[in-house]
Amino acid sequence: MASAKKRIAVLSPVAWRTPPRQYGAWETVASNITEGLVARGWDVTLFASGDSVTSAQLHAVVDKGYNEDSTADPKVAEYLHISEAFERAAEFDLIHSHYDFMALTYTRLVSTPVLTTIHGFSSPKIMAVYQKYHDGYFVSISDSDRAPGLNYLGTVYNGIDLSLYPLQPTRGDDLIFLGRIHPDKGVHLAIEVAQQSGWPLLIAGIIQDKTYFRDQVEPHLDDRQIRYIGSVDVAGKNELFARARAVLHLNTIPERFGLVLAEANAAGVPVIAMDLGSCREVIEDGQTGFLVNNVSEAVQALPKLPEIDRAACREHVRQRFSIDTMVAAYERVYDKIFDQETKRRS
Amino acid sequence: MASAKKRIAVLSPVAWRTPPRQYGAWETVASNITEGLVARGWDVTLFASGDSVTSAQLHAVVDKGYNEDSTADPKVAEYLHISEAFERAAEFDLIHSHYDFMALTYTRLVSTPVLTTIHGFSSPKIMAVYQKYHDGYFVSISDSDRAPGLNYLGTVYNGIDLSLYPLQPTRGDDLIFLGRIHPDKGVHLAIEVAQQSGWPLLIAGIIQDKTYFRDQVEPHLDDRQIRYIGSVDVAGKNELFARARAVLHLNTIPERFGLVLAEANAAGVPVIAMDLGSCREVIEDGQTGFLVNNVSEAVQALPKLPEIDRAACREHVRQRFSIDTMVAAYERVYDKIFDQETKRRS
Repeated sequence: MASAKKRIAVLSPVAWRTPPRQYGAWETVASNITEGLVARGWDVTLFASGDSVTSAQLHAVVDKGYNEDSTADPKVAEYLHISEAFERAAEFDLIHSHYDFMALTYTRLVSTPVLTTIHGFSSPKIMAVYQKYHDGYFVSISDSDRAPGLNYLGTVYNGIDLSLYPLQPTRGDDLIFLGRIHPDKGVHLAIEVAQQSGWPLLIAGIIQDKTYFRDQVEPHLDDRQIRYIGSVDVAGKNELFARARAVLHLNTIPERFGLVLAEANAAGVPVIAMDLGSCREVIEDGQTGFLVNNVSEAVQALPKLPEIDRAACREHVRQRFSIDTMVAAYERVYDKIFDQETKRRS
Repeated sequence: MASAKKRIAVLSPVAWRTPPRQYGAWETVASNITEGLVARGWDVTLFASGDSVTSAQLHAVVDKGYNEDSTADPKVAEYLHISEAFERAAEFDLIHSHYDFMALTYTRLVSTPVLTTIHGFSSPKIMAVYQKYHDGYFVSISDSDRAPGLNYLGTVYNGIDLSLYPLQPTRGDDLIFLGRIHPDKGVHLAIEVAQQSGWPLLIAGIIQDKTYFRDQVEPHLDDRQIRYIGSVDVAGKNELFARARAVLHLNTIPERFGLVLAEANAAGVPVIAMDLGSCREVIEDGQTGFLVNNVSEAVQALPKLPEIDRAACREHVRQRFSIDTMVAAYERVYDKIFDQETKRRS
């Protein structure tokens, strides 16, 4: 196919390695896109930290993710890393940026088209940059996580590597919280569900908000019914999925995508998720989990969990949230861009 | 003259207004260069905060200095501001950047030459950027504040507006400390000099290091011999110079330039300065003040202050550190760049 000869630069963040060892959703998705594009025959260069692992060509000017390198200055790393990709723009037919508003400020200085996947708007203060560059090329990761006025070419759901999350044959006993320990993620609501139901709860994830952990999580830990086990890697996630009756994802602000929902479903684990943001785009209510509006609805959903067909959960993810599905969707976006660029230049 | 037709973009920082209301050395120098270039007939566009005051054309995308705007995000302001200048690069024959390592990362994406005045290396961590862009065009603000390997076109001393600091006709009684309250600036050493000599000391400047102020400055304040009067603007500086017997500048790390030394001398006030970094480039030992190596030498210099000819101090500044001297020196640097660019393109 003609498009196979196009050269794509994938610009990943350098907060963590690509793919990350543990936490790092943006780097995870950038990695999945990179590997998926390579598998489908594209010529791909990944701009990421020097310790990144990829089957694409790796181009790195910072050795490690700045969160994994105590000698690094994040500001220096970001300016060096992002500009490097744009200095090499002429070598590529497309730059696919996962680097938020910062990378946008270089886009008008190169003639190579730049596609930005917006993994989330971290603050209202960054919107001024998106407004200035609103006529760039953008992809949203869910229909719900969009800002008005931007030139969106489509929504492309994040895809996961299903081989990393095999179907767990049998249902476990535990409720699982898996995510950043932060009020946005509703750890305290998961704890309430455990307390009201009496079911065991395992909490895993990096502590992003220490005060929140100390005040609203730690006091409820009893080493028995409610436990915190720290941050987990892929193997650790699978161990949790093997023990899981359900994943509780009671986010308190609109979810942007929710990778962990797809990962749990891939393993056959149903998800009880707050009906906020993208959750209803990822979870099929009554089919791969339950959408709820509060703790009491979450507790009421627990007895219905056996109705969920675990193999159907995985099949749903395979169809909607596999890397192949994601990359095929990005290929359609790339083709739109190539068409528009050809028209613009003719 | 031919060079008068060249279009210069001056890229000032947006930490503060240009010129700053009080503290903000980099913005002060960027302002002085801008106004000096305009006075000498250049076509100048100043990229600075929207509330900046200039006789050049002002181009602004952020309203206020981010240190003066509680709603601002410094990172957003910097990326928006710096990139804006580079997006307009084709409108200029030269971009004169005062924006540190960040602006360097845009320089290879435009064909307009960029001159960077390095106002100081804030951290060893930023050196990686200077190393990458070592073949750019650089100016140091003193011979002492240089990094190896950079393509320096010269040292251009900072120039001050002498009309702002009139000659104070008579000597005052006080020792003056004027600068950031920070260990680098040796406020504690100025206090020791006051204590050993019994002479009165007035301390003025923004408190940049609160712990240092609390532990090493505040305990010595007695509202009588040793006083702290807060931060001062230009009028406040002149009031201090009118009361000054000398300015004490006992920096503990190498000074990069030391604007306040020139300002004090312009007002006819001698300076007792630590012989570290650029101080010996600004102060003529025995002529415009005294260079010392420690507190005891500073105390020994006090009785010699009447030997200093106050009018000669001002004349020294007029010759070496006036805006006109500075701008004339930058014009010579600009001409070097235009010559090199012409050769490179021919």
